[in-house]
Amino acid sequence: MKARIKITLKNGVLDPQGKAIGHALETLGFSGINDVRQGKYIEVKLAETDEARARDAVERMCKDLLANTVIENYSFELES
Amino acid sequence: MKARIKITLKNGVLDPQGKAIGHALETLGFSGINDVRQGKYIEVKLAETDEARARDAVERMCKDLLANTVIENYSFELES
Repeated sequence: MKARIKITLKNGVLDPQGKAIGHALETLGFSGINDVRQGKYIEVKLAETDEARARDAVERMCKDLLANTVIENYSFELES
Repeated sequence: MKARIKITLKNGVLDPQGKAIGHALETLGFSGINDVRQGKYIEVKLAETDEARARDAVERMCKDLLANTVIENYSFELES
């Protein structure tokens, strides 16, 4: 199974990297950009084939290592 | 409109950051991890409301700034 994990900063947490991207896009001539937020995207290939167990494992991976749940949210999709 | 952009390394491009995450997960006791790849996730809020024009703008943003198309692939979804 493959897990596609998105990790984003929570609302209200300052995102200087996102701001920098927004400024760079404006400098390049793109207009009408209201907000940019940068996060992480992680793909994990698992040997596990049972969806419930895979979901449980990925949930624990996110909580234990991948996301800092104080300032970040995570979400993921599984694909067999 | 909101664009959710995923930027991933192309197949065959070495991903030391992904490897490090894979090792860390194994150290934490997770087994059956075959491969980990890390990418970037960017959310852009656009003032544009026309989907075709928004799609065109995001495509250009990815090519011009967000992704290095020599080594990276990008994909995005739009949400109104």
